Amino acid sequence: MGSTCVRIAIDAMGGDRAPDEIVAGALRAREELGVQVLLVGNPQAIESQLPPKTNLEQVEIVPAEEAIAMDEEPLSAIKRKPKASINVAMDLVKQNRADAVVSAGHSGAAMASALLRLGRIPGIDRPAIGAVFPTIANKPVLILDVGANVDCRPKFLEQFAVMGSVYSQYVLGTEDPKVGLLNIGEEERKGNDVAVQAHQMLRENSQISFVGNAEGRDVLSGHFDVIVCDGFVGNVLLKFAEAVGEVLLQFIREELPQGLHGQIGTAILKPNLRRLKQRVDHAERGGALLLGVAGICIISHGSSQAPSIFNAIRLAKEAVDHQVLERIQYQYQSLQRESG
Amino acid sequence: MGSTCVRIAIDAMGGDRAPDEIVAGALRAREELGVQVLLVGNPQAIESQLPPKTNLEQVEIVPAEEAIAMDEEPLSAIKRKPKASINVAMDLVKQNRADAVVSAGHSGAAMASALLRLGRIPGIDRPAIGAVFPTIANKPVLILDVGANVDCRPKFLEQFAVMGSVYSQYVLGTEDPKVGLLNIGEEERKGNDVAVQAHQMLRENSQISFVGNAEGRDVLSGHFDVIVCDGFVGNVLLKFAEAVGEVLLQFIREELPQGLHGQIGTAILKPNLRRLKQRVDHAERGGALLLGVAGICIISHGSSQAPSIFNAIRLAKEAVDHQVLERIQYQYQSLQRESG
Repeated sequence: MGSTCVRIAIDAMGGDRAPDEIVAGALRAREELGVQVLLVGNPQAIESQLPPKTNLEQVEIVPAEEAIAMDEEPLSAIKRKPKASINVAMDLVKQNRADAVVSAGHSGAAMASALLRLGRIPGIDRPAIGAVFPTIANKPVLILDVGANVDCRPKFLEQFAVMGSVYSQYVLGTEDPKVGLLNIGEEERKGNDVAVQAHQMLRENSQISFVGNAEGRDVLSGHFDVIVCDGFVGNVLLKFAEAVGEVLLQFIREELPQGLHGQIGTAILKPNLRRLKQRVDHAERGGALLLGVAGICIISHGSSQAPSIFNAIRLAKEAVDHQVLERIQYQYQSLQRESG
Repeated sequence: MGSTCVRIAIDAMGGDRAPDEIVAGALRAREELGVQVLLVGNPQAIESQLPPKTNLEQVEIVPAEEAIAMDEEPLSAIKRKPKASINVAMDLVKQNRADAVVSAGHSGAAMASALLRLGRIPGIDRPAIGAVFPTIANKPVLILDVGANVDCRPKFLEQFAVMGSVYSQYVLGTEDPKVGLLNIGEEERKGNDVAVQAHQMLRENSQISFVGNAEGRDVLSGHFDVIVCDGFVGNVLLKFAEAVGEVLLQFIREELPQGLHGQIGTAILKPNLRRLKQRVDHAERGGALLLGVAGICIISHGSSQAPSIFNAIRLAKEAVDHQVLERIQYQYQSLQRESG
């Protein structure tokens, strides 16, 4: 051992395409990103997915007896199955045998497991799930929370803003990230009580660059680098955004080839239409980051295939490389010193 | 007089392009839809927008001394300016001199004016703004509320469902509209407290066909005809959806004409691209309906130009023709009889 390469614990049993696509993505990440992968799950099931020539000494399999199914109630399942793959993966981080966890399994279970096994970063009340959206300005925007907390108090939103700013700056490479509060108008008194109070707190927070309210139309504008919201509206927005690309492509498929001119024109435009599809198609971004727990955890789509898992592992590696966890901890230590 | 044609009061002073585009849209609607238009506002400003040959006896101008600016606080402005164009327009409905109001002005002011001048339909606690989205199933879905109520109690959502079902059935022509509750998961216990309680109430309501929770990804699927949500989430979703259409059209403008083939193909496809734009463009839909007040009110975008105003007037005419108001009143009268 003694290696300094990043070690990623992968829930090999989580997701619709587990373990085959999960293992394939992990092996590719090991090859191309130089990370160490720890495949957590049923050893026989995992080994059967390894290519024939795999050197078993180079792939670490960590046995886990159980798995959490997608329809289980997360908290009780996590408690009832201590040896479930997601729990074992979190324990590897807790024991400092891994630097991060990647899971495409039950996202609620991953969050519950992270909370119970790793705990929260001191000073953070609620972890948040952050998702990256593309913008027309050709740079990403980080939206959080997209599903961890259906009801948020204003100070939770403030914490999301601080964590999101750290992530945007150090992982997405944004200099001085501009923070917005998702709201239904630009004026500071717009929105519900939580939004009005959060606006005030965000404006007074010296750790972030708060620029004001972001409306739905501003999400993809590129005017904001981080947008905070409660997990209810964030989750609706995320799932809508994922679906909308598909809808727009279908409109194109239906309208363009109509009539003789349509068929000729569409045939001529084939390469251009393919490029358009790539831009609209929600690019495989790999996964969402669970921010606020005392460990790096990437939550991937349940439908993830190998390329998504690969991207999720890359995301995890970047978060480790850029010390996202330590930087968030530092923000809250300095806060506690100031108020102490 | 004595005519049975639908009479629409139009706030000629409301909107970024007032009065020119508003007047132009109204004159076209009068011509093509056979409606009577009452242009409410400053007579000189309106007259100066009429084409030279206009027969002034055929265009009714209703003088209004003031207008509400977009940055005014709606409720206080509505009270402070009783002779503002939106108030005068609402009064025309109240006095039965008009059947409906169309305004592209301050939407909050239009709602406040409708509430104060026309009042609510008995049995309805809160009016809602309903917006129609296109779906991949080539039929519309009505989302409400998209901005009138930032915090909703479960029974408000239930009322939105009843009103939305009436509108979907009689104006959009949906047989037995399928109602969904916007939520972050399909299971009935998902979401915040309001969502969980609303789910229960919707399921037990015999006036509607409730099919369950709708996630963000289901909004455009066509599986639902009416989706209810609070005005905060709905407004974020509406503005995001409008912006996404523009993003797609920008991608098309950037990608399709690239290269010689691209230019030829794009030229050939011009009519088809126009149809695609119409499907994506929100302007084609004219406006949102204010449901629950004792009058038909269409709220158009502030940026509305003549085609949007024309469509808004058509929407108003359809709501009048199909007796949306009377049908909603009937639903609540029958409810009160049942419980009485």
